[in-house]
Amino acid sequence: MGEFTLSCPVPITQSPTILMAHGSGGTMMHRLLETMFLPAFQNDELLAQHDGASFNINGARLAFTTDSFVVRPLFFPGGDIGSLAVNGTVNDLAMCGARPLYLSAGFILEEGLPMDSLERVVASMRAAAETAGVHIVTGDTKVVDKGKGDGLYINTSGIGVVEHDLTIAPQSVRPGDSVILSGDIGRHGMAVMAVREGLEFESQIESDCAPLASPVLALLDAGIAVRCLRDLTRGGLATTLVEIARSARLHIHIHEDAIPVLEDVRGACEILGLDPMYVANEGRFIAFVPPEDRDRALDILGASAAHIGDVTEANDSLVTLKSTIGATRIVDMLSGEQLPRIC
Amino acid sequence: MGEFTLSCPVPITQSPTILMAHGSGGTMMHRLLETMFLPAFQNDELLAQHDGASFNINGARLAFTTDSFVVRPLFFPGGDIGSLAVNGTVNDLAMCGARPLYLSAGFILEEGLPMDSLERVVASMRAAAETAGVHIVTGDTKVVDKGKGDGLYINTSGIGVVEHDLTIAPQSVRPGDSVILSGDIGRHGMAVMAVREGLEFESQIESDCAPLASPVLALLDAGIAVRCLRDLTRGGLATTLVEIARSARLHIHIHEDAIPVLEDVRGACEILGLDPMYVANEGRFIAFVPPEDRDRALDILGASAAHIGDVTEANDSLVTLKSTIGATRIVDMLSGEQLPRIC
Repeated sequence: MGEFTLSCPVPITQSPTILMAHGSGGTMMHRLLETMFLPAFQNDELLAQHDGASFNINGARLAFTTDSFVVRPLFFPGGDIGSLAVNGTVNDLAMCGARPLYLSAGFILEEGLPMDSLERVVASMRAAAETAGVHIVTGDTKVVDKGKGDGLYINTSGIGVVEHDLTIAPQSVRPGDSVILSGDIGRHGMAVMAVREGLEFESQIESDCAPLASPVLALLDAGIAVRCLRDLTRGGLATTLVEIARSARLHIHIHEDAIPVLEDVRGACEILGLDPMYVANEGRFIAFVPPEDRDRALDILGASAAHIGDVTEANDSLVTLKSTIGATRIVDMLSGEQLPRIC
Repeated sequence: MGEFTLSCPVPITQSPTILMAHGSGGTMMHRLLETMFLPAFQNDELLAQHDGASFNINGARLAFTTDSFVVRPLFFPGGDIGSLAVNGTVNDLAMCGARPLYLSAGFILEEGLPMDSLERVVASMRAAAETAGVHIVTGDTKVVDKGKGDGLYINTSGIGVVEHDLTIAPQSVRPGDSVILSGDIGRHGMAVMAVREGLEFESQIESDCAPLASPVLALLDAGIAVRCLRDLTRGGLATTLVEIARSARLHIHIHEDAIPVLEDVRGACEILGLDPMYVANEGRFIAFVPPEDRDRALDILGASAAHIGDVTEANDSLVTLKSTIGATRIVDMLSGEQLPRIC
């Protein structure tokens, strides 16, 4: 009798080629980062594994971030690739606790893109930059052959200035900290999905795409001892919580019934078999704050914000969720892909 | 008899859709910038129309640049998209007279890209960053569906620090200034073209892809009163000279026989009917310096550098070239496209 092995079916996590799931924000993207990019580009600033890098130049403390946008379709209810590209980078800077100042814009245009579409996107970027108070100061344009793009891809990179002395990072999270969510989740992902799949709901779901620098700076200006900030993009709330629990080597316990989800979003998710916890957002963030600062932070963030959970003593790097029916389960990162090309 | 009009055939300069020529670095790209991007993103930093933006943050004078790379094929003699992406942004910072410090890297990966290719590119970026003395501190990865990319696109943005008080810009160019070219031209474009078209020459043409911060900083450290710097990428030497003549509202007169071109490059250009003056480079720049600094600048840049011409009093914004056979002709920007997807 020959040898044999038994194995359970597990999601693919290694592949000789790039798969869509490598862009999901979930397990495979993390593996790609950890096995390829981090070892190659090893340096102190990168190893912080934050939404951006932070460093000092001639006494100025700066934050620096980059993000490419490949959302399909280019236009969706509540935004378009232009507003997304500006707000995405503004928000990454905000999550470093920085005041966003300057943005670059790199365009990869597909041959045949209607000039009208480009004009609409550029106008939308201009409006978003004005709203967020940033200047787009440098740019680049490349054109690729028809069939080698998808209309338009945009990269934005941003520079912000850090005007406080806090270390806003997973490593600063402490047992007992409160987890505050800035608003309802799942709207961006479902808005894009609805357009892409031609779904119609009673009322149109609009993306939550919005700049987050003002609420974050309001927290900092009020002296809230913010431990960690993270915006909830690819992979959604669940993946973000798991990332932070792992980096901080702590346990986060959250309450499902404290997490705001619009009725339409919940309905759309149910129809499509998606969990709102994993759906992308573009204008929502979580803040970890000391319990004594919690109520003040909630006041500053307004009625849409919610205290959704707490950090506990356990150093098991896990996230648990108490569901609406009272059961407790472990929350994992997004595995594979739920919804590609969402940002 | 109805009305009729006579018109000469002219190159297309307006189009309702994006054409490959919009990415050429020539006339159509300039028109796109001037009619769409500059009016939308109007601000002092952008209006400088330089390779990058420059501004002060808390007393530090910084330069900020961005560039997307869509070169096809990904690997070519003398470099690949990875070394190009690092050196391209390092060079844009150098052309602002800045010391390059930090880079971001945004990857747009096409589904199906072999993991090996990505590994080679990442290793090449690492090596190029080490050579140029910059840190890649923040990054982003997106994946697009098969058929919506071309293997791999990379955006790099960069931050540098400006440590001198010169205003390095076309506006600083003065009549009498000498035009210095840092080395032979046309190699990058012809190296890529040879691979793409399967051409073979007696010896392989290698891209000139290289970081330019060291020679530029050597000029500045030696106290050369550098007026303007520009690297010769899309559109080549000719387009760059025309850009500067127009921005400075002066006349530049150059001597064809002073412009170094390798024999193989000249031969390849002749076979393909291309003018080396319009072929892209990735490791060459021109420096405008006062005549009294010319010889010292040439010494610093070494034997490959050449004094190719001078700025004259005429304010006609033209570039003229005295050809090897003694005739003088007006040099224009690249119109349409000579060679797409070169960087």
